[in-house]
Amino acid sequence: MVSNGTNGEKPHGQKLDASKFTESVVASMGEKTPERLREVITSLTRHLHAFILETNLNTKEFMAGLELLNWAGRMSDEKRNEGLLLSDILGLERQASEMDDLVDSVTSHQLSMDNVTTTSSAILGPFWRSDTPLREFGSTMTFDTPPDAEVAYIHGVVTDAVTGEPLKNALVDVWQCSTNGLYEQQDPNQREFNLRGKFTTNDQGQYALYGIRPVPYPVPSDGPAGKLLQLLDRHPFRPAHIHYMTSKEGYATLVTQIFDRKTKYLDNDSVFATKSDLVVDFVPLKGNPNATLDLECNIALSPLQS
Amino acid sequence: MVSNGTNGEKPHGQKLDASKFTESVVASMGEKTPERLREVITSLTRHLHAFILETNLNTKEFMAGLELLNWAGRMSDEKRNEGLLLSDILGLERQASEMDDLVDSVTSHQLSMDNVTTTSSAILGPFWRSDTPLREFGSTMTFDTPPDAEVAYIHGVVTDAVTGEPLKNALVDVWQCSTNGLYEQQDPNQREFNLRGKFTTNDQGQYALYGIRPVPYPVPSDGPAGKLLQLLDRHPFRPAHIHYMTSKEGYATLVTQIFDRKTKYLDNDSVFATKSDLVVDFVPLKGNPNATLDLECNIALSPLQS
Repeated sequence: MVSNGTNGEKPHGQKLDASKFTESVVASMGEKTPERLREVITSLTRHLHAFILETNLNTKEFMAGLELLNWAGRMSDEKRNEGLLLSDILGLERQASEMDDLVDSVTSHQLSMDNVTTTSSAILGPFWRSDTPLREFGSTMTFDTPPDAEVAYIHGVVTDAVTGEPLKNALVDVWQCSTNGLYEQQDPNQREFNLRGKFTTNDQGQYALYGIRPVPYPVPSDGPAGKLLQLLDRHPFRPAHIHYMTSKEGYATLVTQIFDRKTKYLDNDSVFATKSDLVVDFVPLKGNPNATLDLECNIALSPLQS
Repeated sequence: MVSNGTNGEKPHGQKLDASKFTESVVASMGEKTPERLREVITSLTRHLHAFILETNLNTKEFMAGLELLNWAGRMSDEKRNEGLLLSDILGLERQASEMDDLVDSVTSHQLSMDNVTTTSSAILGPFWRSDTPLREFGSTMTFDTPPDAEVAYIHGVVTDAVTGEPLKNALVDVWQCSTNGLYEQQDPNQREFNLRGKFTTNDQGQYALYGIRPVPYPVPSDGPAGKLLQLLDRHPFRPAHIHYMTSKEGYATLVTQIFDRKTKYLDNDSVFATKSDLVVDFVPLKGNPNATLDLECNIALSPLQS
């Protein structure tokens, strides 16, 4: 107890009732708080307080966790999002992306009705870039192709998931790492925008490009996410995949990844992005001097609810 | 659906059962995970997944929250811990500090037994420095005293909370901001270590120093914590307080703050640190040329459980 001459306080500190304290934090939000933000912060506050109570998390442990978060922020810039990676290894982005499917599109309604073939979403991951250039139909996005790479002709049709009609002028944004497991922004030996490109669909809803067969790679291990994986006795590898972001006015933008059926780690992706219907087959391609493999990858977008 | 010639997948993406997905993340921890870490990460994962499900948090909102966290990390360095401040305005450090009281000391046992007078804890906050110098008994820690400051003689006895015996050679680390609301590391016009000092208790368990009457101040508003307070329609002010960290071998280190009874914001501290038994009274002091106020502040430490 802190005491002084004129202080007539009780002899010991009051232990606040835990839920009462939590609710006092929630109640501190003012009248002008946007309703959605109030809803989110209320739930977050209650869950984080409950987490601390449930685990008897002490200040030393709390500070260690916080230092991990600050470290992630310090490592993050335009080219790297370590906070996102840290979230990904705990499955948070995957969980949020499921919510997109439920909230932003007709998927949830259609799924229960019939055999509508909406492409599943997968997490964005930390390596997407907003400034990737638009490339020509059927052109390549592999420029510094290493000797061990297998070039693939990657193509497909973008359709309306409800009507099945092809969608022209849809934007297909594709990115992948090289065979050393590094994206171009991580690797000084790759030119800028290597293995990434934006493509538009033609009048038949088709897109086409040249890329490479993807390889498994470890997520970066020099930051807090790598440290946490190590502490949790987990491997850092991702199964071989190619990232897609497909958009078209009037449709829910689809962020996804496709996975090579022959890759390792399909059942234990370090960032929990795999879904069984996103597994694809690279097949041998003959008579094309530019590629030895063919990959057909069709994408069905959900119309937005109006 | 992603489809190609040899892919015989189901016509639509499987929506994983939410709790099944959460448990698969928990199950990904390897055998070598330390048990305490497994316990903490399991609870954290479940609560964060539940938060996302409960609020239908979508990717856009998730990314906005993540950017706030990365921003906090980027702002943090040896002199500023914005991640801690962000946690503090949600009451997280307060919640964890309650756990310290329960876990690290005999408090919980003693409290239920008798009128043991253990001093309550309060949060550390982001302005403590590890390298504060040791100062002489009865010396001053206010060097750049502004004209509007009231100098106070601050003194008290550090005792064993169970026996009531005075503790000699306890370390009393004290820090406070100046009347402009800034700690020395935030203010180029204050000399280094102004208004902070470490003091040791004498053979009678006493410590003594000169400081100033504290003032309310707003937490920094130029970062994510300030932004969030604004969005939540909350004021950024803290009630006038002085920080204490008191330690002695064999006792639980006590981190606390004392609050001026006459200050504003005693009932709505922006970081939820106040406790009623930590409220103290500054009283007029006569006959001392160095100070106009007197503050007696006694501290009772809990013996560690053996």
